[in-house]
Amino acid sequence: MAEQSIELLAINTIRTLSMDAVQAANSGHPGTPMALAPAAYVLWNETLRYDPAQPNWPNRDRFVLSCGHASALLYSVLHLAEVKQLDADGRPTDEPAVSLDALRQFRQLNSRCAGHPEYGHTSGVETTTGPLGQGVANSVGMAIASRWLAARYNRPGFDLFDFNVYALCGDGDMMEGVSGEAASLAGHLKLSNLCWIYDDNRITIEGRTSLSFSEDVAARFVAYGWNVVQLADVNDLPALREAIQKFQKTSDRPTLIKVRSVIGFGAPNKADSHEAHGAPLGDEEIRLTKAAYGWPENEKFLVPGQVLEHFRQGIGARGQKLRTQWESLRAKYDAQFPELAAELRTIERHELPEGWDAELPVFPADAKGMASRSSSGKVLNAAAQRIPWLVGGSADLAPSNNSRLGFDGAGDFEADQYAGRNFHFGIREHAMGALCNGMSVCGLKAFGATFFVFTDYMRPTIRMAALMGLPVFYIFTHDSIGVGEDGPTHQPIEQLASLRAIPNLLVFRPADANEVAEAYRAILPLKHQPAALVLTRQNLPTFDRTQCASAAGLHRGAYVLLDAPNGRPDVLLIATGSEVSLCIAAQEKLAAEGIAARVVSMPCWERFDAQPTEYRDSVLPPSLTRRVAVELGVSQGWQRYLGAEGVMIGLDRFGLSAPAGTLMKHFGFTADHVADVAKGLCKK
Amino acid sequence: MAEQSIELLAINTIRTLSMDAVQAANSGHPGTPMALAPAAYVLWNETLRYDPAQPNWPNRDRFVLSCGHASALLYSVLHLAEVKQLDADGRPTDEPAVSLDALRQFRQLNSRCAGHPEYGHTSGVETTTGPLGQGVANSVGMAIASRWLAARYNRPGFDLFDFNVYALCGDGDMMEGVSGEAASLAGHLKLSNLCWIYDDNRITIEGRTSLSFSEDVAARFVAYGWNVVQLADVNDLPALREAIQKFQKTSDRPTLIKVRSVIGFGAPNKADSHEAHGAPLGDEEIRLTKAAYGWPENEKFLVPGQVLEHFRQGIGARGQKLRTQWESLRAKYDAQFPELAAELRTIERHELPEGWDAELPVFPADAKGMASRSSSGKVLNAAAQRIPWLVGGSADLAPSNNSRLGFDGAGDFEADQYAGRNFHFGIREHAMGALCNGMSVCGLKAFGATFFVFTDYMRPTIRMAALMGLPVFYIFTHDSIGVGEDGPTHQPIEQLASLRAIPNLLVFRPADANEVAEAYRAILPLKHQPAALVLTRQNLPTFDRTQCASAAGLHRGAYVLLDAPNGRPDVLLIATGSEVSLCIAAQEKLAAEGIAARVVSMPCWERFDAQPTEYRDSVLPPSLTRRVAVELGVSQGWQRYLGAEGVMIGLDRFGLSAPAGTLMKHFGFTADHVADVAKGLCKK
Repeated sequence: MAEQSIELLAINTIRTLSMDAVQAANSGHPGTPMALAPAAYVLWNETLRYDPAQPNWPNRDRFVLSCGHASALLYSVLHLAEVKQLDADGRPTDEPAVSLDALRQFRQLNSRCAGHPEYGHTSGVETTTGPLGQGVANSVGMAIASRWLAARYNRPGFDLFDFNVYALCGDGDMMEGVSGEAASLAGHLKLSNLCWIYDDNRITIEGRTSLSFSEDVAARFVAYGWNVVQLADVNDLPALREAIQKFQKTSDRPTLIKVRSVIGFGAPNKADSHEAHGAPLGDEEIRLTKAAYGWPENEKFLVPGQVLEHFRQGIGARGQKLRTQWESLRAKYDAQFPELAAELRTIERHELPEGWDAELPVFPADAKGMASRSSSGKVLNAAAQRIPWLVGGSADLAPSNNSRLGFDGAGDFEADQYAGRNFHFGIREHAMGALCNGMSVCGLKAFGATFFVFTDYMRPTIRMAALMGLPVFYIFTHDSIGVGEDGPTHQPIEQLASLRAIPNLLVFRPADANEVAEAYRAILPLKHQPAALVLTRQNLPTFDRTQCASAAGLHRGAYVLLDAPNGRPDVLLIATGSEVSLCIAAQEKLAAEGIAARVVSMPCWERFDAQPTEYRDSVLPPSLTRRVAVELGVSQGWQRYLGAEGVMIGLDRFGLSAPAGTLMKHFGFTADHVADVAKGLCKK
Repeated sequence: MAEQSIELLAINTIRTLSMDAVQAANSGHPGTPMALAPAAYVLWNETLRYDPAQPNWPNRDRFVLSCGHASALLYSVLHLAEVKQLDADGRPTDEPAVSLDALRQFRQLNSRCAGHPEYGHTSGVETTTGPLGQGVANSVGMAIASRWLAARYNRPGFDLFDFNVYALCGDGDMMEGVSGEAASLAGHLKLSNLCWIYDDNRITIEGRTSLSFSEDVAARFVAYGWNVVQLADVNDLPALREAIQKFQKTSDRPTLIKVRSVIGFGAPNKADSHEAHGAPLGDEEIRLTKAAYGWPENEKFLVPGQVLEHFRQGIGARGQKLRTQWESLRAKYDAQFPELAAELRTIERHELPEGWDAELPVFPADAKGMASRSSSGKVLNAAAQRIPWLVGGSADLAPSNNSRLGFDGAGDFEADQYAGRNFHFGIREHAMGALCNGMSVCGLKAFGATFFVFTDYMRPTIRMAALMGLPVFYIFTHDSIGVGEDGPTHQPIEQLASLRAIPNLLVFRPADANEVAEAYRAILPLKHQPAALVLTRQNLPTFDRTQCASAAGLHRGAYVLLDAPNGRPDVLLIATGSEVSLCIAAQEKLAAEGIAARVVSMPCWERFDAQPTEYRDSVLPPSLTRRVAVELGVSQGWQRYLGAEGVMIGLDRFGLSAPAGTLMKHFGFTADHVADVAKGLCKK
């Protein structure tokens, strides 16, 4: 091996491990790891306050690889830093997060080295990345969490939380709108603990960025209120270090370090070309590249012992020292502030304070009732008063979503008041979802709110929450043509179906105020699942629970709300949300004509589907094939509950602009129509 | 009425009509129309090259109200300008697009004055707006269309196309990421025919913009490469005129006019407050406001005769003159360039050139076959050579999507070559979708391409295309876990279900190369429907159509591809796309065991559902209840085709990172498994 500094040796180890992993898999992205190895090296070995032996240390600096396709870069560093794998309970094990063997198994089934970094699968991965823009936007949420935790839990002499968040990102991250939304908000919130390192390599899949991207990114970030540092060459380590110091010394704004790099650095035939982006270099080009690095050409997965030792003396020693100091501090904090300390333990266990739901409202029967967005506002506020780390907000619709925490001391999260619990995400649904994900991975119980129809704007983030298993929750109001006059652009039709299609997401559409309260009881304790709460703008009657079954039936997904008088129904009426009360009215009309109907409220398909067959059959008896389902949305998916003979009253077209009452009649969402359809079935 | 200039009288007429309409509806947004009336006045009466008598004149300037909630502003102007309604064939009628009666019926069922402006419903509305950011992003597509049409059809002395595009937008439009994506691209493309007027009113629903939005928007747009003009007061008409002239004189970049306004201008108690945003002012505040305008306090829907006359002399006379001049030019053009003129007529009729599909490839049977993305690339290129206005591109994945038009002369659409047909949208899926919508409303046959999983990023624009009835089409490749190593972030699971849920969208998932060709035959002639083409990364066998039924069966949505030997199947195997060939292999295995299976290819649910019952029953005989459906996605919705006894082989969880073949085995997508499931059914 040609003589080279230990820094360069370490950097070239990262480069060659990444090349070898991609080549072994015959799949992946070698070019960016080769380019960004110096940045990863300086960040990990010299900068991060991170203990490889304890990758869940709460105050560790966070590293986000927003250009997730460069996963080999992160895996190589996790290997060299000897980061330990956490067990299912979050305790460190002796096992490496990324063994050399795992690197050899890059992109193979069950390898820790998945194609893109996956949160919860490989320790050291702070968030799942790959869909561009998500990682950087998550990083803003993490920086928020650091500030919020500090504002709530730090005490004079006890700086428990002051972690920084570093994200590596590329041109794709910069082009995606979500990163712009998140950057605008990060600037507004003056998150000086946030540093994005933008790899300006001028290459995308279609060729040079000049094909589609000629804006002045640095000037754009200055406009967002960021500190911008520009570097001419990522291989200039002193300049990189200086840039990071500038970030660390900046106390009033986030920092963007824009750095030029050469994709596929060192590859004689493929560097600076999109050919180095998304395919293995090939054995011959790898040999030539290794030669250019002064590396043994035919060695594969070579890790010089002195490089491992260098990481031990770098991040290993530094991290251990910082973490143990922190733990001493924490021990004193535990003694001095036992209540706050207990809160922190509860957060770390992903639990809720005991008795958190003791004072959730119980709503008396009321024919006029209230909109479920209103009951949600009341329940949310009652819960939030007992769960201090329940924080969130709306994409500028808080008064309409009833999502504001209105009690004394809740406050607003702003640049000069980081203990605030109400977030003003602005008209930025996509960033809102991504920020909630970032806040959630740092332990906050985060929620986002908007109109149901605008879930389309934040859908990529809901998918990420579901994929990562994050207990983010969503308050989605204005859930149907009940919106009325605003018309089809604002009336969700297909959103229930499209959210139900996302694996691992719970969708709740409660039928009255007490089902809303139960929905919060179902959602807030979730540890590994996101949930959407789908709510009306218009009033809904509050059912008389002395006549109807308890709203606790919600927890089983569907339940018999009001049975036929003798428990022997002729027909089933199944509905969710605002359509349940239509079914109750229809039941009465049918009874007057001698037809016995059972009303089933079905607020959550996913929960119902998870019940034992026996329970499901007790609610929807297989022998009872006369079934009517009523829901203000597309009928897709309802056939599973309707069977071959059932009839759907749904809405398989876009809505119209008119008052809600007019629309309900126009589209047949009336008790009379439900009763008529049921009668029709009974005549068959 | 207090004496006032005719300009102010016209502006106050717009304001009071808007206030009255919102009040009559008891629903809507009065504040922005009151604020922006001067801008609407200057644009419409003094600026737009627009003939109210012919609102479909191809070279008219386009006006987009991106802040669609301010619809009363647009309706009031359409009324005053006496814009005529077009009939279903796009011919002008004598009927006003917006009568005074329609304004009185604002937001009522079937009124032309829907809650938000709806394309195709009210003439003069160039695109549906309401979901923020969409309108401005559409406007970039319209500006592109103007440049493209000019580059292709203009000839020396024949400037047939040179229309400008003006969009009014607000803080919400500026905060949404899609506008940033679109603005970046507009700057890159140097669209100097594009002018956004940004209403900087500093008020959003949650309060002042300072809660969440403190960036320097002007500096951001300079960074995008825009010309930025700042105005202190929208009521300063000379300054507004000067700003518009600056736009018109700028030839190398788009223009942003940032103008301060006061929401609810003139309302003594509600101006400059979010109370003026989304609710009627109330009768008393309206009286006070009218008094402040020097307007008769108790008059409602008052239109002074001199204001109508003023608009006739303004936009009416100017528009008629310009349009008739253009028609004379066009008549000469028709004579001099008959072929190009014929093309234009075909575009205007939303038709395709005769014989456009004569040379689509026919693919020979081939067991190895090819990926459907590859056959799509071939068919797309064959079609595009016959349809000159078929244009589009990818969100930086053209080599992966096989979406490039590779033939001689196709070219790239860039700032210095506006005749190019290949668009480089950059890593901006959301803007891509919105730009396609804007190009489509100007007559171009526009397409966008990306990985199927990233449809989530552009979903709001697909919904808008479906709602507007635009024949945009989408090329979505990498459609399942067949993606392989990239893992769950890149493997679509729920996207088929979630796109099928969108009303008026056709989703095609062809099973082999010849179905791909038929899918293009189905999609390209569409006039009022968007369509998504869902394609594989991996190879698919090309079926032997001498053994199988013709691929033309695709047009009926589902067809018997390969029947049981005697036409009397024991079991049905139904699949789409890549899973069809699994079913054929399973059929063979079953035959060896004496079980007769019918294989149904079902490339398009929507088309199949639209067939007569007789046809549907011939494909899926009701008596044949042993059914297996196979699709690499969530099972949601399949029950309608499976019936009570059928079995779904789907994937109701996220995928994994591994080679595609490994994943197929892991998740049971093998011919053996399909055969086993079918056997199980037959044993029952």
